[in-house]
Amino acid sequence: MGNGATRQEQERSRVTRQKLMTAAIEVLAEQGWAGATTGAIAERAGVSRGACQHHFPTRAALVAAAVEQVFHQQVEELARRARGLPRSRRRVEPLLNLLCDIYAGPLFTAATHLWVAAVADNELKALLLPLETHVGREVHRLTVELLGLDERDREVRDAVRATLDLLRGLALANLLHDDTARRRKVLAHWARTLEAQLTPTRASRAE
Amino acid sequence: MGNGATRQEQERSRVTRQKLMTAAIEVLAEQGWAGATTGAIAERAGVSRGACQHHFPTRAALVAAAVEQVFHQQVEELARRARGLPRSRRRVEPLLNLLCDIYAGPLFTAATHLWVAAVADNELKALLLPLETHVGREVHRLTVELLGLDERDREVRDAVRATLDLLRGLALANLLHDDTARRRKVLAHWARTLEAQLTPTRASRAE
Repeated sequence: MGNGATRQEQERSRVTRQKLMTAAIEVLAEQGWAGATTGAIAERAGVSRGACQHHFPTRAALVAAAVEQVFHQQVEELARRARGLPRSRRRVEPLLNLLCDIYAGPLFTAATHLWVAAVADNELKALLLPLETHVGREVHRLTVELLGLDERDREVRDAVRATLDLLRGLALANLLHDDTARRRKVLAHWARTLEAQLTPTRASRAE
Repeated sequence: MGNGATRQEQERSRVTRQKLMTAAIEVLAEQGWAGATTGAIAERAGVSRGACQHHFPTRAALVAAAVEQVFHQQVEELARRARGLPRSRRRVEPLLNLLCDIYAGPLFTAATHLWVAAVADNELKALLLPLETHVGREVHRLTVELLGLDERDREVRDAVRATLDLLRGLALANLLHDDTARRRKVLAHWARTLEAQLTPTRASRAE
């Protein structure tokens, strides 16, 4: 029974942490770094400030953990949705749209607020730089895998890099107003370009 | 002599405005929206706060004017430097690098701080949205002109749009650390792609 209570406590603790991280992304995306105080995040999560501080000693630690956690949830969601796509070149455009939906969502908006705040905040910067490297590598690996590409090819690596930089740029353009219609056009063009760059030999692996 | 005094006053006024706008971009790029108070900008410009308020009644008006003014200076600088480039397809990569230097500089960093701050600030948003439209159109027009392209072609329009979104994404990646080496690789790749997309007929106009 002692074990049961511990498991219950662990589960409660996990749920509380999850609530706080989800709330951190929401409040950051809506109100930016200045508005996303620990108090505002705890209130959104329905958690006391004391409990918040128990789980995350600083605001920077909370938001960095939140970005990483929500990122992994979205990667899983993306992989799940990608399973429904055709296994041929025709998967390129819908895949780009799936990826872009993530970039155009609250996680990216929240992350942008953090990245911009970190320009003038060294504590935050020290937390975000390794996170950026980790998230960047993970998105790159996932994109290569979902497109069925061979990473050893330098052109492939550069094409994937350019694709992810494009998605970041499109997401930034979406920050102040809904840019979906324009974004779909640009992505359709980019998908055609990418399809043409994947030579038949390489693309055939995904057929 | 009355006229002379007026001209002197106008010149002094122009110089003061210019100093304030240059300082606004610098302080914004270094310290973000929260740190770029009117006081900090006036101090950097070596102008009294009273004089600052005389020229720009609000901080939002000052920074919006600064973005527009510094943007036009950089467009002129870009057009000047582009005159030295070869008039052939080989101009694509150096042109992309020139454009990217602007995106990776203090103006873009300052603008990013403003855009992100505007997510939670309706006054700023109202000032920035028309500015975004104007600057976006101008950069698009300039890119088409400098690349010697025919805008009536839909593929050309989409390729230019994608190029500018890519540059924006690359600039964002440069915010927290110097990403120049990676950026050069991505731009070299995109230049080759773009050159291939400009069919001989279209590209020959620039030869």
